[in-house]
Amino acid sequence: MKASQFLFATLKETPSDADIVSSQLMVRAGLIRKIASGLYIWLPMGLRVLQKVERIVREEMQNVGAQEVLMPMTQPAELWQTTGRFDDYGPELLRFKDRHDRDFVLGPTHEEVITNLAQGELRSYKQLPITFFQIQGKFRDEIRPRFGVMRAREFTMKDAYSFHVDQVSLAKTYHDMYEAYTRIFTRLGLDFRAVQADTGSIGGFASHEFHVLADSGEDDIAFSDSSDYAANVELAESISFNMAERQPPKQEREDVLTEGMTTCKMVAEHLDIPLANTVKTLIVHGHKEDGTPQLIAVVLRGDHQLNTIKAEKIEEANVPLTLASDEELKAAGLHKGYIGVDLDMPVFVDRSAATLSDFVTGANKVNKHTIGMNWARDASITRIVDVRNVQEGDPSPDGKGTLKIKRGIEVGHIFQLGDKYSQAMNATVSGEDGKPVTMMMGCYGIGVSRIIAAAIEQNNDENGIMWPQTPTVEDSIAPFEVAIIPMKSKEETVMQTATALYEELKAQGVNVLLDDRNERPGVKFADLELIGIPHRIVVSDRNLAEGKFEYVNRRESEKQMLSREEVIAKVCRK
Amino acid sequence: MKASQFLFATLKETPSDADIVSSQLMVRAGLIRKIASGLYIWLPMGLRVLQKVERIVREEMQNVGAQEVLMPMTQPAELWQTTGRFDDYGPELLRFKDRHDRDFVLGPTHEEVITNLAQGELRSYKQLPITFFQIQGKFRDEIRPRFGVMRAREFTMKDAYSFHVDQVSLAKTYHDMYEAYTRIFTRLGLDFRAVQADTGSIGGFASHEFHVLADSGEDDIAFSDSSDYAANVELAESISFNMAERQPPKQEREDVLTEGMTTCKMVAEHLDIPLANTVKTLIVHGHKEDGTPQLIAVVLRGDHQLNTIKAEKIEEANVPLTLASDEELKAAGLHKGYIGVDLDMPVFVDRSAATLSDFVTGANKVNKHTIGMNWARDASITRIVDVRNVQEGDPSPDGKGTLKIKRGIEVGHIFQLGDKYSQAMNATVSGEDGKPVTMMMGCYGIGVSRIIAAAIEQNNDENGIMWPQTPTVEDSIAPFEVAIIPMKSKEETVMQTATALYEELKAQGVNVLLDDRNERPGVKFADLELIGIPHRIVVSDRNLAEGKFEYVNRRESEKQMLSREEVIAKVCRK
Repeated sequence: MKASQFLFATLKETPSDADIVSSQLMVRAGLIRKIASGLYIWLPMGLRVLQKVERIVREEMQNVGAQEVLMPMTQPAELWQTTGRFDDYGPELLRFKDRHDRDFVLGPTHEEVITNLAQGELRSYKQLPITFFQIQGKFRDEIRPRFGVMRAREFTMKDAYSFHVDQVSLAKTYHDMYEAYTRIFTRLGLDFRAVQADTGSIGGFASHEFHVLADSGEDDIAFSDSSDYAANVELAESISFNMAERQPPKQEREDVLTEGMTTCKMVAEHLDIPLANTVKTLIVHGHKEDGTPQLIAVVLRGDHQLNTIKAEKIEEANVPLTLASDEELKAAGLHKGYIGVDLDMPVFVDRSAATLSDFVTGANKVNKHTIGMNWARDASITRIVDVRNVQEGDPSPDGKGTLKIKRGIEVGHIFQLGDKYSQAMNATVSGEDGKPVTMMMGCYGIGVSRIIAAAIEQNNDENGIMWPQTPTVEDSIAPFEVAIIPMKSKEETVMQTATALYEELKAQGVNVLLDDRNERPGVKFADLELIGIPHRIVVSDRNLAEGKFEYVNRRESEKQMLSREEVIAKVCRK
Repeated sequence: MKASQFLFATLKETPSDADIVSSQLMVRAGLIRKIASGLYIWLPMGLRVLQKVERIVREEMQNVGAQEVLMPMTQPAELWQTTGRFDDYGPELLRFKDRHDRDFVLGPTHEEVITNLAQGELRSYKQLPITFFQIQGKFRDEIRPRFGVMRAREFTMKDAYSFHVDQVSLAKTYHDMYEAYTRIFTRLGLDFRAVQADTGSIGGFASHEFHVLADSGEDDIAFSDSSDYAANVELAESISFNMAERQPPKQEREDVLTEGMTTCKMVAEHLDIPLANTVKTLIVHGHKEDGTPQLIAVVLRGDHQLNTIKAEKIEEANVPLTLASDEELKAAGLHKGYIGVDLDMPVFVDRSAATLSDFVTGANKVNKHTIGMNWARDASITRIVDVRNVQEGDPSPDGKGTLKIKRGIEVGHIFQLGDKYSQAMNATVSGEDGKPVTMMMGCYGIGVSRIIAAAIEQNNDENGIMWPQTPTVEDSIAPFEVAIIPMKSKEETVMQTATALYEELKAQGVNVLLDDRNERPGVKFADLELIGIPHRIVVSDRNLAEGKFEYVNRRESEKQMLSREEVIAKVCRK
């Protein structure tokens, strides 16, 4: 491509409404333009990237035997009424009426349509398993569209749906999809983690999210530094400490004056002990086995944070989890900031807190804490539970390495749906015994346009975008892989040499741009860095005299003077 | 592709709501499925065809330097309010409100969005001309969706928009697009005509429609049998007859009794003269130069049909053209069915009627006609005009050959928009002299999904679809080019030979299907004919013994026994 025949829509200024670095850079580099809140045009430069991502996603879907279809974006409301989602979905589902006053929706997802299709087309277990996918525009009426294409209203998604005669078959396709997703994000050169998206309770249906690690992510992801383990912090298990680690008591129990010290941190500093040697007690609403309300205590180490989702799994706790009010504490004879662990109510102790000995806790008296506290001797535990957020440095729950925590951007989600939709829509096939079987389903999404924003969040510097380093040059998603800049393009030899190199690289299948724009070199350099072209080759009179080309890699700053053969080898990654 | 791993959704029965042959065959062959009125799913078999058409369209757009973009399907109403189309467009424009009660539309076309983009991005005449295109889902809320994907509500379209500093530049790109469209439809193997879509008045802006000729078309297309000339019958010029052809009078004028004969046909039969020797006079509402209402007469040959669009171009006629009422005729002393040409009002005579001599007309008396009527001697002409529809056999207006008339399906439209949108949206660039210039625009549409229906309308037989014969095999839009059917697939040699041939063709880049489904041969043959696979190769024990393969071309019925080399040469069209 010659740059003079291609829309360069680069901007020097950062648009005022671009809120994160990828959104700023995508607008500045001329990949996208906003036309309204959450609605973007993909400009020629950006669409090249989008289509490259689409190609990789499509190939890997085909590799696992998924068949491509194209469903309409507009869907009749009846289908959504059948599954109940027309009412349940919430205002993200854009509902509208056609000219005949019939209800429709703009598809944010296509479970209903595809299940309706499966119901009509699939007759026998022999046709299963079967997987359909599409790459298509979706619409979600976000209340506050933001982060550019990351949380846009109209966006490009790959959605796939699989149909099965039983759970075993579903699990196999789910596994294939897990592997396909892993290959997709690996080929794209992204630093990502496949994250357990539920607690994986036995017999339940699995779900994994694929997150690209980047500071602007909306989720905290805990992952092992030495294995594949990764989970959302909200769901990551804090592994059971070995109870044998609990030391026998060495100190006597004793109350000490801690006037006005209502936090573990204040107490630990005052006593000059590690925060990890204190515990805090939270009193929350709960109930007895027969439903009678009662207060219950949840005990954590002073340096740990309560994980509400985990705490709500305590059977005796009310959902949603709510703290007891000051009045309720008073009525129970407790003093806020000084609550201990020796209590007249069920006491649920976090795994880490349960292994402590000679620890410090509230004394159940105003302005007093107890030191030398020990479980069994001084207080009893109703049940040991996992109720805290994992922390960096915790051992990984799979026993391999320790945990790191980073923010993640969700770019993919695979999900074992079971028969939720097929049941509602009566999607059955005749089984091996001739009797109807309700199909099991899986669904598998990838935010195709979102991937680009995530890739940029992970790969950028002060000069602009750096595209991910993909394992093969063919999979690079840079809009152009190489830019050739003729300096003083009016000089005939320079332009001839530049054009000849351009033609040769093109003939070799390299995605190359000849920057023949009538602009100063400084402007071109800045544009190409902003857009993130991986390889820059400058052709100049002076260097040609020595038979050399000036080469700069976007990820390195130093210039190299290379021969024609060397420069070709560089950009072909040979 | 192995058929066992691909969704065959063929139907034996014709769906009751499929109204034309292409719609019936597309559903029966499992290319599409309807989910609601005017909304279709493209099944794997159909999407393969759609993507092949898209590829050809994309290549030819790129060949003329058009740059691909992707605009959102949802568009803010403000843009449409700027051009006035939010109110003007009519109910085909689907309008909706988002959750914040803001107005949006579902894009049936994208002039507003692209002009808004051009207004923001293009600064200088040096950036022009520039052309953008996209291939994308569009929505038109048709009052009565019909003809399958031909007149669906959601459909795939290629829309392109060009921007220019002046009319000369617009005309050049328009010409390039005309050529690109011609290449697209030629590559697709379609019998099509580029049709003048307006009267081409000098200085006006040109517009051409591209029609695929097929009986189910909605337009009548007149085209020369010996040149490129083609026009919508409504607009085709009836060429000026040479007035020298008008013979001098031979008969005397005479009134004859024609009781109850109020049509030219009745009179011609009664007098035993050609219908072409009679004329009919239509009295319509008109006005004088100062606007005063008056009746005017339009005279046509008895065998010709009035063309309203042309008649409305008579300056003295009212628009829309309306016939005088019986009361108005009476008041003017005229008798319906017996009106002549010697009248006390302006008389506009069609070119063909003006060359007649000794013709028959009404006598302006009840139950009487005049024979031996002659212009000049018996009646005067206010102006000779072109107000009739052309007919098959008429000379072609370009002077080459004679006209044929066939029905056409519009699959493309190119249009010189001028500055309608750029003016309304203030889309200017700085011109060579530094002053702002309002850009000139062209727009260029192709109904990508409609092409497939049109191709099938033009290519089918009683057994199903026959895909168009494309100039090159690479451009074939058949979902698969070749099907290999192993007979008795349980016999090892048969299956091995079939698989080996399949692998070899695949390696040669042939789009081949191995029909390994567990079905009877008859079912497979019927399916493959319905789907229209161009080449069928049967591998059987008996033929293998002779080293032969049974080959059938979809367009021929006879089987050929061919060697392996011959069969490969056939399907590769070598």
